[in-house]
Amino acid sequence: MNTAAVYHRTDSEYAFLYGDRDHLRLRLRTAAGDVKKVSLLYGNFVEGSYTHWYDGDGSAMQKYLSSDYFDYWTATIEEPIGHLPAYGFLVEDFSDNQYLYGDRGLVIDSPSARSDVATNYFRLPYMHEIDRVMSPEWVKKTIWYQIFPDRFSDGNHDNDSKVTKDWSDNQPSSQDFYGGDLQGIINHLDDLADLGINGIYLTPIFKSPSNHKYNTSDYLEIDPTFGDKNVFKKLVDAVHAHGMKIMLDAVFNHGGDESAQWQDVLRNGQKSIFADWFVIHDFPIHFHETELAYRPDKNYESFAFTKDMPKWNTANPEVQDYLIGAAAYWTKEFQIDAWRLDVANEVDHHFWRQFRSKIKSINPEVFIVGEIWHSAGPWLNGDQMDSVMNYGLTSDVNHYFVDQDITASQLVSQYNDRLMNYRDQTNEAMFNLLDSHDTMRIKTRAKGNMNLVKSAFAFLFLQPGTPDIYYGSEYGMAGKEDPDCRRPMVWDKQQQDLNMYDFMKRLIALRHDNWQILSEGKIFWDKVPVENRLLA
Amino acid sequence: MNTAAVYHRTDSEYAFLYGDRDHLRLRLRTAAGDVKKVSLLYGNFVEGSYTHWYDGDGSAMQKYLSSDYFDYWTATIEEPIGHLPAYGFLVEDFSDNQYLYGDRGLVIDSPSARSDVATNYFRLPYMHEIDRVMSPEWVKKTIWYQIFPDRFSDGNHDNDSKVTKDWSDNQPSSQDFYGGDLQGIINHLDDLADLGINGIYLTPIFKSPSNHKYNTSDYLEIDPTFGDKNVFKKLVDAVHAHGMKIMLDAVFNHGGDESAQWQDVLRNGQKSIFADWFVIHDFPIHFHETELAYRPDKNYESFAFTKDMPKWNTANPEVQDYLIGAAAYWTKEFQIDAWRLDVANEVDHHFWRQFRSKIKSINPEVFIVGEIWHSAGPWLNGDQMDSVMNYGLTSDVNHYFVDQDITASQLVSQYNDRLMNYRDQTNEAMFNLLDSHDTMRIKTRAKGNMNLVKSAFAFLFLQPGTPDIYYGSEYGMAGKEDPDCRRPMVWDKQQQDLNMYDFMKRLIALRHDNWQILSEGKIFWDKVPVENRLLA
Ligand SMILES: [Ca+2]
Ligand SMILES: [Ca+2]
Repeated sequence: MNTAAVYHRTDSEYAFLYGDRDHLRLRLRTAAGDVKKVSLLYGNFVEGSYTHWYDGDGSAMQKYLSSDYFDYWTATIEEPIGHLPAYGFLVEDFSDNQYLYGDRGLVIDSPSARSDVATNYFRLPYMHEIDRVMSPEWVKKTIWYQIFPDRFSDGNHDNDSKVTKDWSDNQPSSQDFYGGDLQGIINHLDDLADLGINGIYLTPIFKSPSNHKYNTSDYLEIDPTFGDKNVFKKLVDAVHAHGMKIMLDAVFNHGGDESAQWQDVLRNGQKSIFADWFVIHDFPIHFHETELAYRPDKNYESFAFTKDMPKWNTANPEVQDYLIGAAAYWTKEFQIDAWRLDVANEVDHHFWRQFRSKIKSINPEVFIVGEIWHSAGPWLNGDQMDSVMNYGLTSDVNHYFVDQDITASQLVSQYNDRLMNYRDQTNEAMFNLLDSHDTMRIKTRAKGNMNLVKSAFAFLFLQPGTPDIYYGSEYGMAGKEDPDCRRPMVWDKQQQDLNMYDFMKRLIALRHDNWQILSEGKIFWDKVPVENRLLA
Repeated sequence: MNTAAVYHRTDSEYAFLYGDRDHLRLRLRTAAGDVKKVSLLYGNFVEGSYTHWYDGDGSAMQKYLSSDYFDYWTATIEEPIGHLPAYGFLVEDFSDNQYLYGDRGLVIDSPSARSDVATNYFRLPYMHEIDRVMSPEWVKKTIWYQIFPDRFSDGNHDNDSKVTKDWSDNQPSSQDFYGGDLQGIINHLDDLADLGINGIYLTPIFKSPSNHKYNTSDYLEIDPTFGDKNVFKKLVDAVHAHGMKIMLDAVFNHGGDESAQWQDVLRNGQKSIFADWFVIHDFPIHFHETELAYRPDKNYESFAFTKDMPKWNTANPEVQDYLIGAAAYWTKEFQIDAWRLDVANEVDHHFWRQFRSKIKSINPEVFIVGEIWHSAGPWLNGDQMDSVMNYGLTSDVNHYFVDQDITASQLVSQYNDRLMNYRDQTNEAMFNLLDSHDTMRIKTRAKGNMNLVKSAFAFLFLQPGTPDIYYGSEYGMAGKEDPDCRRPMVWDKQQQDLNMYDFMKRLIALRHDNWQILSEGKIFWDKVPVENRLLA
């Protein structure tokens, strides 16, 4: 047996409370095809020395998902929270060798190894409800629709920027404004409801000089080209009246260079009361309005080394109060249902713990989604985020269905490893998407082949998680990378792909009818010919 | 190559900030003897796409510690905090196959795999000082001395319990009182200083009816048989005047049945204002003064299922305020240097995060040690505890040096796996002990063979961590399991093992002279004949 491949980690995605408070779910990883049987020995630590729960054959674990390298075994225990679980794995290879795997590692199974309750079992000493990793239940039932407000619908010409591009011009530059706003979204909520959407995700709407608004000037104001607090209140109320949820985008890694705080630092240097709000290596700051983003002498931290998005010093309690206070304000005063956290991976864990604690104290049903493109385990242990944007799945799906450069078994292998990176309830809350304002649109990636696009969407909607549609995908919108993926919404009926709309509407209905089994059910893969590019 | 054995986990004991703020330490685990070479590819994520830092051979990692199953490779990177590290491992086997191991798992090394910066590298996106796992620097220089106050020295007969056993009677029952107190400790600080001790760890001293006081009645009062706040203040001042630190024992998992809160619940049942302070399954409570600990109908949670130590509901914010408030009180008003947390593994993580946050805000130099006998990774990620009582090492040392039932290579293998369970700075703060009030004394385990005892102490003092001596070990005190391990301190010179005292004093001096290299140095094992029972 491949003994060095056997892996378990307690109090992690390998051992966690799931679903009802009484369920403990355990996983064990072994080398693929290497192990015949895994059984679980499980009991109460204190009682072990006299009840000998570790005698016998244990209970068989299920070989659940597999990948090219690994088999993942799973078992669910129904045991009240508050007992004192100890557990070990009996691992049997194809030569009938049996090992006991516990807190001391792998040992040859023997009565003496088993009876050593104090040392040879994993411990999850006491299962506390307050430490349970959980997301709001409504998330699993939600189909999201991502809106880039400047490009969705212009409902009020009075708030337009001085120069706006004509809506029919579908070649945006990175600097263009189109006049889209919150009123435009309100005007189209009936349409989104018709499609079956019940979650609206808006990229940033707070005051900012850019069209994308990821360089926030003021976290407590709606950008005037989008509307004001009154129209935003109207939007939230209308969203809720449609039975939908609303998610805002918070950019807490960095601010914009037009913020009052950064401007004060530029003016007053080290003497600014905001000097410690940013990550500045020395003064005076090397900042020149007119220069390019990358400068060898830049002496402050910023997003992606650009000059105009200075990084917040989120370790400073004043900054924590300002940013988390702003999120609390919108959550409390405007009944926001969810937060998408921009560049969440570059902000410290300490900050996110405080953020979660504050927001969930206002409303425990708020959903928190981080923008993290790589494996995000350290943020998903219940103390920070509920979910992340699942770009890993995006990549797998695109490679298999669209680029067609991986096989079905590669897709399954990669995706299974990915699923086993997180607790099941985290998978059930994953923010699943095929494209966004940060990527090429899937139709363009598929070179216009709508069958491939539909297959990819169908696969996405059958997975555990909460699926998302980037605005206009339902009408077959195309676009290369930013800024081309941010074209104005196609409202002209002549240009709408109504066949795609019909497909999307039926797919959404299917998901709504079956959300529970799709989200919480077990996954089984059937092998199908590669040329089908479909998996059951 | 054993591909399924290759393991790394980012933002964990496998990837962490170490020492100076500019050092990132990485580890990789492979199957023992299976891999010829591991090299590290490392660079800045954003810059990767144009600087191609991933070209070339990378920098070689050191094969550091090994166990029966695993080799652990390590490398330390000097890179300012705040950059955006991406990294991957080039793993070369003895058949000259080379793999790239990153966020997507193991792939055959190729130019295209390497250039895929967005997907095939591990990310530690931004290294934040505030998330760094660190313990107070003074801990590494400290030699602890554990005192069980009722049994150490009686400095004031006026505060004795009505019935006390004669100090010369060294057969304590679990109910006996001997009259030891805080004044007795003050009286002997010069002696402890002479031995070289610079840290005093007291088992609980708060108000409680028992001799061990692990069933606290009032967390805000000194037990009257030990003294009062004045004499405690005197003790703390005297400890500090001797250049020593003081650690108290906090029992936050459960209270004692004589606490005002539990008594109120017994009197008023569900109507008690403290009804939600405990974990009670239903009312009325089945509690009978006169009955034994285990009852089949017991309907509330308690420590080890005993009846007289009801478990606190630490998820209740009122309980959090009371218990953490008490710890804050002693930390702030009495300048306590450290907390030992009883049954720390059965209290929720949420509570410990709040505890740490509060205590470190009062004094960041306070040391926090959990009582956790098994692997304690989930508590040692920088947000809860600095250290745990290292009973795992206790067990290894006892089996090798005292029981002599494992070989030197088994000791090294087990201990190396154990070291690699934690970040290096955590190992350097481990609370290392051979025995305590909860175990048989080592002299008794060694059947009186003081050469074995000395070998075990010598090994302990050469390890990274902060070594501890259980009171009286310096004079060769013996004792079987509780209550026998809690005999009154041997102050009678006729009964003191002065040879052991001399050995201990020299060992302590050696540790003081070499604490930095012993604590922070790299570990190398030389093979020596098993019969020596000594390792260099
Ligand atoms: Ca407008
Ligand atoms: Ca006394």
